[in-house]
Amino acid sequence: MTKTTVSAPHPLDQALALDPVVVTAHEHGRESTRHWQGRTHPGYMNMVGPFGGITAAQALNAVLQHPELLGEPISFTANFAAALAEGAFRAEARPVRTNRSTQHWTVTLSQTDAQGVESVVLTATAVTAKRRATWSAVDAVMPEVPRPQSIPRVPLIRAVAWPQRYDMRPCAGQVPTEWNGTEADSVTQLWMRDEPPRPLDFCSLTALADVFYPRVWRRRAVMTPVGTVSMTVYFHASADELAATGTDYLLGHARAQSFFNGFFDQSAELWNESGHLLATTHQIVYFKE
Amino acid sequence: MTKTTVSAPHPLDQALALDPVVVTAHEHGRESTRHWQGRTHPGYMNMVGPFGGITAAQALNAVLQHPELLGEPISFTANFAAALAEGAFRAEARPVRTNRSTQHWTVTLSQTDAQGVESVVLTATAVTAKRRATWSAVDAVMPEVPRPQSIPRVPLIRAVAWPQRYDMRPCAGQVPTEWNGTEADSVTQLWMRDEPPRPLDFCSLTALADVFYPRVWRRRAVMTPVGTVSMTVYFHASADELAATGTDYLLGHARAQSFFNGFFDQSAELWNESGHLLATTHQIVYFKE
Repeated sequence: MTKTTVSAPHPLDQALALDPVVVTAHEHGRESTRHWQGRTHPGYMNMVGPFGGITAAQALNAVLQHPELLGEPISFTANFAAALAEGAFRAEARPVRTNRSTQHWTVTLSQTDAQGVESVVLTATAVTAKRRATWSAVDAVMPEVPRPQSIPRVPLIRAVAWPQRYDMRPCAGQVPTEWNGTEADSVTQLWMRDEPPRPLDFCSLTALADVFYPRVWRRRAVMTPVGTVSMTVYFHASADELAATGTDYLLGHARAQSFFNGFFDQSAELWNESGHLLATTHQIVYFKE
Repeated sequence: MTKTTVSAPHPLDQALALDPVVVTAHEHGRESTRHWQGRTHPGYMNMVGPFGGITAAQALNAVLQHPELLGEPISFTANFAAALAEGAFRAEARPVRTNRSTQHWTVTLSQTDAQGVESVVLTATAVTAKRRATWSAVDAVMPEVPRPQSIPRVPLIRAVAWPQRYDMRPCAGQVPTEWNGTEADSVTQLWMRDEPPRPLDFCSLTALADVFYPRVWRRRAVMTPVGTVSMTVYFHASADELAATGTDYLLGHARAQSFFNGFFDQSAELWNESGHLLATTHQIVYFKE
């Protein structure tokens, strides 16, 4: 007897899957809105609703699967309007303007409740472009940290699903072990990659841009309720650099700049092991107190 | 004879003026899209099209003038799809989701050409919210620089209109005086305010977030063509803090993190003279070579 191994798709690919709902609707004779159906994935659930990074990646994927896509993502902004309920959502991606080498997108995710009322749960915009080779340089400085293999993996909280989808190896600024109000800086540095390993692409990079735990928890050692309201990713790499990164770890470096009356910001860099700054990312996050 | 002085509105207020076009259109029985007509202002023109900061401020103003507005801006992202032609544009602001204390907005600016074809020139999203007093802290460090009054105003290039609308007093990283390819860091620090002085508000702050000249010019002393494709502003202040700032100068600190194959990023902080970090802002910018 021979054993045949049929490997299931990676959990991220399962989560990213979108089924076309309406093939094409022409508006103004020039714009094509595509409707897709996606669904939340049990492997990426957070305490309330799914991990924001996976929802952002699903929204970006609606752009990347669009047949009229021009080039590759340069910029992506997702606004989280509500926690998604478990189950299906509708993704709508629309190329609102296509220039010679750049393209502008709007994306909406919405869900229909038991009463049949549809509500927007996420809005997003993206800019894609055909890149040309130009003078390039990195001005940010990659932190000097030990190699990922020398750092133990962060212990998992089994009660929450999504952190189990990531191999996270913190170098600095771990989650506080005592919630005692001791103030610290707001910096976290960690190596991270998908678990199990999966070759990097724009969607997985977008999800990785949201893995940092809330800066206000780090800063204050107070576990106040939080929720990201808006998140932006700037891509500083093409598909080639992501493919070359493969299943290597990324070094993430995140810090806050301001905590003010209910909202704080976070800025982060994502580097690959060979020192390419693949993305910079920014978000603004609600915190309760 | 007595002289009566009738003061014209500030150029910024002229530029921000939006006339309602359609009073209300109900979609899904719950959402109200407002249509406004605005127009480019000769005082804020750049070399090709208007100064991006003023276009972003006009888009934000469509949200702020909406009768269903909840709270104050927390986050605003504008994507520049095309240079605006001189003249009228249509602004469309839509509250796509209103929660108890937060509200999500989409905004579109479009123009109609001589053939009657309407095209999107800008997309934007905004999150507004009712803030509550919470623990607050600033983690970014305000640069130590001389007071604005001790720094001479930057000489004006009379050929371009919009810089004449700002009083800019550079502390570090001025525009290169020789375009000789000498590489430098990508940092610029400057004091800035509207010219003539005008009390600060969310719209003027948004425009000020875009006054920095292109980081690639600073970094390389090479004047390559550039254009911002996406810009985000995170507000770390309420109307009260902006009113308290009044007509004081703001200290802007901007730098790039990556220049890669046609696009570079810029991150900046905007401080008031008494040390409140009013906003952090990020953008990604096309550059030709």
